[in-house]
Amino acid sequence: MKFLIIGGDAAGMSAASRAKRNNPDLDIKAFEKTMDVSYSACGMPYNIADANREIDDLVVRHASVFREKQGINLLTGYCVESIDPNNKTVEGTSLKGEAFQFPYDKLLIATGGSPTIPDLPGFDLPGVMALKSLDDGRKIKTYIKSNNVKKAVIIGMGYIGLEMCEALRARAIEVDMVKPGPVFLPWMEEKMSDAVRKEVESNNVKLHLGHQVQKIESNDQHLEVICSDFSIETDMVLVAMGIKPNSELAAQAGIDLGIKNAIAVDRKLKTSDENIYAAGDCADAYHVVTGQKTWIPLALRANRAGWAVADNVCGKEVELPGITGTAVFKVFDLEVARTGLTLEEAIKSGFDPANVIIKTRSRAHAHPGASVIWVQMIGDKKTGRLLGAQMVGKEGAAHRINTPAVALHGRMTVEEFYQTDLAYAPPFGPVWDPTLTAANQLLKKM
Amino acid sequence: MKFLIIGGDAAGMSAASRAKRNNPDLDIKAFEKTMDVSYSACGMPYNIADANREIDDLVVRHASVFREKQGINLLTGYCVESIDPNNKTVEGTSLKGEAFQFPYDKLLIATGGSPTIPDLPGFDLPGVMALKSLDDGRKIKTYIKSNNVKKAVIIGMGYIGLEMCEALRARAIEVDMVKPGPVFLPWMEEKMSDAVRKEVESNNVKLHLGHQVQKIESNDQHLEVICSDFSIETDMVLVAMGIKPNSELAAQAGIDLGIKNAIAVDRKLKTSDENIYAAGDCADAYHVVTGQKTWIPLALRANRAGWAVADNVCGKEVELPGITGTAVFKVFDLEVARTGLTLEEAIKSGFDPANVIIKTRSRAHAHPGASVIWVQMIGDKKTGRLLGAQMVGKEGAAHRINTPAVALHGRMTVEEFYQTDLAYAPPFGPVWDPTLTAANQLLKKM
Repeated sequence: MKFLIIGGDAAGMSAASRAKRNNPDLDIKAFEKTMDVSYSACGMPYNIADANREIDDLVVRHASVFREKQGINLLTGYCVESIDPNNKTVEGTSLKGEAFQFPYDKLLIATGGSPTIPDLPGFDLPGVMALKSLDDGRKIKTYIKSNNVKKAVIIGMGYIGLEMCEALRARAIEVDMVKPGPVFLPWMEEKMSDAVRKEVESNNVKLHLGHQVQKIESNDQHLEVICSDFSIETDMVLVAMGIKPNSELAAQAGIDLGIKNAIAVDRKLKTSDENIYAAGDCADAYHVVTGQKTWIPLALRANRAGWAVADNVCGKEVELPGITGTAVFKVFDLEVARTGLTLEEAIKSGFDPANVIIKTRSRAHAHPGASVIWVQMIGDKKTGRLLGAQMVGKEGAAHRINTPAVALHGRMTVEEFYQTDLAYAPPFGPVWDPTLTAANQLLKKM
Repeated sequence: MKFLIIGGDAAGMSAASRAKRNNPDLDIKAFEKTMDVSYSACGMPYNIADANREIDDLVVRHASVFREKQGINLLTGYCVESIDPNNKTVEGTSLKGEAFQFPYDKLLIATGGSPTIPDLPGFDLPGVMALKSLDDGRKIKTYIKSNNVKKAVIIGMGYIGLEMCEALRARAIEVDMVKPGPVFLPWMEEKMSDAVRKEVESNNVKLHLGHQVQKIESNDQHLEVICSDFSIETDMVLVAMGIKPNSELAAQAGIDLGIKNAIAVDRKLKTSDENIYAAGDCADAYHVVTGQKTWIPLALRANRAGWAVADNVCGKEVELPGITGTAVFKVFDLEVARTGLTLEEAIKSGFDPANVIIKTRSRAHAHPGASVIWVQMIGDKKTGRLLGAQMVGKEGAAHRINTPAVALHGRMTVEEFYQTDLAYAPPFGPVWDPTLTAANQLLKKM
């Protein structure tokens, strides 16, 4: 059987490796339009932060390993340009300019996502960059060095923008951040997002909210980011306005798209075409809490979906239960984490949510080194179910978020979660873990 | 209604406070035989580690707060010596030597646990001490200072012994540890316990396993801990051989004892006597995984049980689902954590367990500062259920153990746990959290 894979990052190479392990006789070809496969994309900000590290340190497995040790026909520099679902072929052009066409029995589209770049003047200037592929990271790193960058503007204040502001500050680069919306971290309640905002500002990052960038101009020495009411002179611009699913290939082949234009897949990761799967940032997923479709591009679910596709292609019949959107990012000394629904999402999804925000300590009474930890927890008044949680703190938020995440998968009520027996020792938390204290407070509102 | 409470620490004072909040008119008396109430017992090793801190820093709420702000009649220095369940009275003697007798409608026994002290010569010598009450901590701290302690022997290698060996090393005291059994951390598999053992030994603590202490002798200057085949000269001895439930009062009153001589209670924390509850280290509990009775003396379940008793006394009808025995301790730079059943416990409880131990990294590929993290995971081949997990590592073990703990409460299978959507960012873990990697490996054995 011929199994073709379009895309050589998390979902694509996970699928290729697992399919080969499942069935060593499988004829697998994986097409990657760049020359980079299997790298830690999420590690790029931390790599960029350190001038002494090579961006290629982030490569998890080199192409040669897939080819020589795993027997996967990995074609780097091969850009697939069209899928013909009737004849079951893919067509495209290699970086060398050679046209190719290959037949498939089963196809996986793992084309990932692309940064959103607005169609405005100057976003194509040298020094205006986004961060998605390893090559993007390479370019940013090279640009900083060769242009001796002292000032940067980041457009956008999401995960990547915030991780990158820390990375650039670590290189002693002055950072201004600009976004059109008036609210910092709009998915987070103000008490908690204020804590994050203060952390960013106390690291000398200037935040400009409510400013729509109109254009970027270049003069001899500098770039200028121009909004209607002010402008900022800078050495480089990072565009971090979010990503969108790379679903054009699928759409052109007549495959159904779903939420946010992601490729619609069922629990087996199958698209509307019987022989075509999609996985990773290009595809949608089921949300465990709502049971509805969602599009949350994150690394773990891409890997997991790649494996599930491999199993299904090899006849194992795997269905994924779905995702809870559990995510964490670090910004300077803070850990910012979430799982499940926000209050707004809970209301939109038809729940009758109760909501609590608590501020407590990361360690036991009288234990030295404790810091503030914020927990928001949301439950459904009708059913008692836990719906979501968010956390901000200097220690323990990143791992603590996983306890409510597991509870969401177990469809536990807030009461059931509150009764869980969590670990306690003074260096690691209070007797009642902050998540349990939040659950206890939430119960009073339910 | 008259609600009497015997014992003024975690379970007792939690019950007193909550009962008063539930019903401000309740006539509550709490008897504590020492002068200390409501302190962070688990914080004592960390306090002892620091010569500049006062032991009383660990007091969470002073007796005066309970009396004056909460209106609880807290009688410190009141030792209850007998319970008369027929006449519903308690009797005893105060530290001033005055006899007392009080009637009750509902009684809570929250007498805690006591250190196991063997009946051997010399265990009553000055300088031979155990650590359970705040006064024990006070004595140890005073003794170290006034005797200028340079060498200590710890008898026992459990949680408290290991936490105390770190504390004493922090005071530059030479530490030898002795235990009769030949196995270090016998509840942990050797690969993992070896990592803990190496950490302890690399901090210049001498471990002597397989040596039964026969007696302790004193000469002018020193103590001598004498085993059959060798002896150690020392300035002080800490006896850390485990604790036992203080259930004598209950037994004398004809109340049923259960596992390990702990007071047997139902899910409402009621003893065999209709009007008498028990909570905390003196009482047993249901294990969530086995459904059977267990006795695991830990702080969180004591607090929770105290609250549940208060609710039940006030007519709220609360049942506790039980415990999973989730616990963590820190020893030097290692976090050592467990939840649920060990492999041996799983077999004894009639499961057909599969078991896996993995060694992985605490952070993402190529992220600086990663350290080794060990995960053991155990599942039941018959039902697929997750049964338990253990972890050892320099970072993240303490909080990570709570994800399998929640899964145990949710009676999740290993497959369901493996499918959970956990948070990922490079500073905090690999894409696949070590617990998920362990679950994946375990699935292959089930």
